[in-house]
Amino acid sequence: MAGSPRNPDSAPKAAADAAPSGSGSGASAPDEGPARGGTISRRRLIGTAGATGVVLGAAGLGAGYAVAGARDSDGSDGAPLTSLGADSVSFEGARQPGIITPAQAHCHLVAFDLAASADRRAAAALLRRWSATARRLMAGAGTDDSTGIALDAGPSSLTVTFGFGHSFFARTGLEGQRPGALDPLPDFSSDHLDPKRSNGDLWVQIGADDALVAFDALRTLQRDAGGTARVRWQMNGFNRSPGATARPMTTRNLMGQVDGTNNPQESDEDFRERLFATGGGTRRPAWMSGGSYAVVRRIRMLLDDWDGLSRPEQERVIGRRKKDGAPLSGGSETTEPKLDAVGKDGKLLIAPDAHARISRPDQNGGAAMLRRPFSFHDGYDADGVPDAGLLFIAWQADPHRGFVPVQRKLDRGDALSKFIRHESSAVFAVPRGARKGEYVGQELLEG
Amino acid sequence: MAGSPRNPDSAPKAAADAAPSGSGSGASAPDEGPARGGTISRRRLIGTAGATGVVLGAAGLGAGYAVAGARDSDGSDGAPLTSLGADSVSFEGARQPGIITPAQAHCHLVAFDLAASADRRAAAALLRRWSATARRLMAGAGTDDSTGIALDAGPSSLTVTFGFGHSFFARTGLEGQRPGALDPLPDFSSDHLDPKRSNGDLWVQIGADDALVAFDALRTLQRDAGGTARVRWQMNGFNRSPGATARPMTTRNLMGQVDGTNNPQESDEDFRERLFATGGGTRRPAWMSGGSYAVVRRIRMLLDDWDGLSRPEQERVIGRRKKDGAPLSGGSETTEPKLDAVGKDGKLLIAPDAHARISRPDQNGGAAMLRRPFSFHDGYDADGVPDAGLLFIAWQADPHRGFVPVQRKLDRGDALSKFIRHESSAVFAVPRGARKGEYVGQELLEG
Repeated sequence: MAGSPRNPDSAPKAAADAAPSGSGSGASAPDEGPARGGTISRRRLIGTAGATGVVLGAAGLGAGYAVAGARDSDGSDGAPLTSLGADSVSFEGARQPGIITPAQAHCHLVAFDLAASADRRAAAALLRRWSATARRLMAGAGTDDSTGIALDAGPSSLTVTFGFGHSFFARTGLEGQRPGALDPLPDFSSDHLDPKRSNGDLWVQIGADDALVAFDALRTLQRDAGGTARVRWQMNGFNRSPGATARPMTTRNLMGQVDGTNNPQESDEDFRERLFATGGGTRRPAWMSGGSYAVVRRIRMLLDDWDGLSRPEQERVIGRRKKDGAPLSGGSETTEPKLDAVGKDGKLLIAPDAHARISRPDQNGGAAMLRRPFSFHDGYDADGVPDAGLLFIAWQADPHRGFVPVQRKLDRGDALSKFIRHESSAVFAVPRGARKGEYVGQELLEG
Repeated sequence: MAGSPRNPDSAPKAAADAAPSGSGSGASAPDEGPARGGTISRRRLIGTAGATGVVLGAAGLGAGYAVAGARDSDGSDGAPLTSLGADSVSFEGARQPGIITPAQAHCHLVAFDLAASADRRAAAALLRRWSATARRLMAGAGTDDSTGIALDAGPSSLTVTFGFGHSFFARTGLEGQRPGALDPLPDFSSDHLDPKRSNGDLWVQIGADDALVAFDALRTLQRDAGGTARVRWQMNGFNRSPGATARPMTTRNLMGQVDGTNNPQESDEDFRERLFATGGGTRRPAWMSGGSYAVVRRIRMLLDDWDGLSRPEQERVIGRRKKDGAPLSGGSETTEPKLDAVGKDGKLLIAPDAHARISRPDQNGGAAMLRRPFSFHDGYDADGVPDAGLLFIAWQADPHRGFVPVQRKLDRGDALSKFIRHESSAVFAVPRGARKGEYVGQELLEG
């Protein structure tokens, strides 16, 4: 998945060379996009800890964060062992944060609709306020005018990502700037979409490794919306906590399945081309150059049905081993599946309708997207069935060349289909990252 | 709050001397209760890291966990910096885990009702299954017969706590064993209780620092319930992630307020007496000796109203500074409030109806309880208002001498009342911890 440290450039920046918390002084290396610096910083942090014999004083971090065993003033040593709180991601950069940034432990997704009275100018003012808040909170400066919920916590790899939905453009008189990539998705037979939880004029994706930091950002951004926009829908998601596994691994979803093995890697030759839009040409407006498109779907998992299968039955549906994500044709998670391999019984080891087969790019004319999902669990219904599943978030240069062909194929013949239900759908245009002094979407709104 | 490292004995055990993951070999120091060993283990872990120059190999931890900068086999250093995944808590001990264990980042609360056909024997079998599962998962052995969701994650300080509600006893023919402490709570004028989310025959509290580990436990325990019991209600909660703050601090709630400052401390002379029941005497059955009672309430916060107040107005309601939790009469969070101190205007610095004044033990005949709350956020309603607040969990030797007198006083005159709404309520008898070979509640069910 996107959060895999296989994309080492997209690791969050560690505090050692990132913004001091609470200062708001803008020391967040504005020229460095969110995709830069992480691994080096982390390595440096570790190196320093080693050189000083484990204890890294607050002064060394500039932010009051005690890392790797520093002692509390009362002599106890319950001090945090991690840089979790101190890790920060830069708001400014070529790309918005939250696309190739490793997925955090918590997310909030929120769609807003503009108020009837809000015009293009009001929308521009809102994006300006939002960008200022995101810039401030991501640097760890959640101080006086915030809710107070994040006081004394570090930025905890907070990212805030802004997008524009299809309906935004007509409401602001910007139809001429609407990209063709936002054209509505086709209907899929497996869709059970709730319009109240679908679409929306504006989208905000919030991620952080601390739940209170994420909630503080959610509430502060909602307050910023004021009378200009109101919440259309809101969803909460989660992923594994950093450090919960022995080593970085592709995450698991609530079916217990390793999820995201086939994600494009930053080292791929066509990574940029697949993920990020270019301007020019018909209905490819210049303001989206360097941006990306997010397909966002709430995919309910029918977990009681799924858990009723035996493990071999589950593995047949997916085409991979549950334990380690290796293809049923053998090897490890990253081994290329042998799609033609047959077992002793003469049957294909990876079934014709196995999810891993059908979702492969080479089975879909090369269509690929970067999946950066979160799990959700919104309690139980009256029958004791969990309302749980996947907040599917997929990034690509054009959903009609990424998500759509893959989903069309899955819709026809994926063995997994009977265990999931697509309950909402939205597509958002997520422009390039803001430069110093800019706000996100400025090129669209003032262009 | 309960999770404060001020109770250093209750820190989770670090992997260095805890159970190896995935082995299920029971190396979890059965004589050591969940309240033991944490600080020493953690200190030892840090000490070792120092001695070896930061890198602690997997062999040193016995569980395959790489801590503090060990390198991945491919040479990248995205390995976890923390022992978060490897930390484990012992299931066996004088007390059940999850009472004085530091509150984890994630919790699930679930109430079950017994099926009509389930008798005392079926309930005993269920508690036996549940205890076996809790023992296994808490040791990090979430392997083949689980959902797979937690595969390759460590136990992540998982705790599972079992309790019995008032209705359990009549359904199992055990009325004679029902403690007086389970007598229904009085009505409070501020209650808006939903019976569907209140009470229940059985209660399971699950906590872990990783969301997938917690969800795996929830689903596995639900599966164990089989036809014997069904989910009555279920709630999800969260707290700060370990390492998100600069140093261990009392947590904050979603009002942004430091929450739990006045919790009893393990060093208090009467800590044990206030928290843990003794057997003998009228309606104090022996099986609850060493156990504790949990009052569980879903307290909705009216956050839009609260956030509409200025910071000084909020501080007046609470009687403490938002920034650091210090009483308005001065000092730091732990300074004793001067309840009689007046300002220049001749008014009490801590208002007569301030929450911090009214909830104080010395204002309530010494009534005290150990609060170990989690925050909740179940999305937004149609008006863009968050369904969020506090999963209030308070522990005491007898709710009628702990929660009730405090809540009576708050109900009459707490300035905070208009910003909160009690939406559900339950009380559970939580017996002592299981010994080796025992299951929780065995003394009740087979006594």
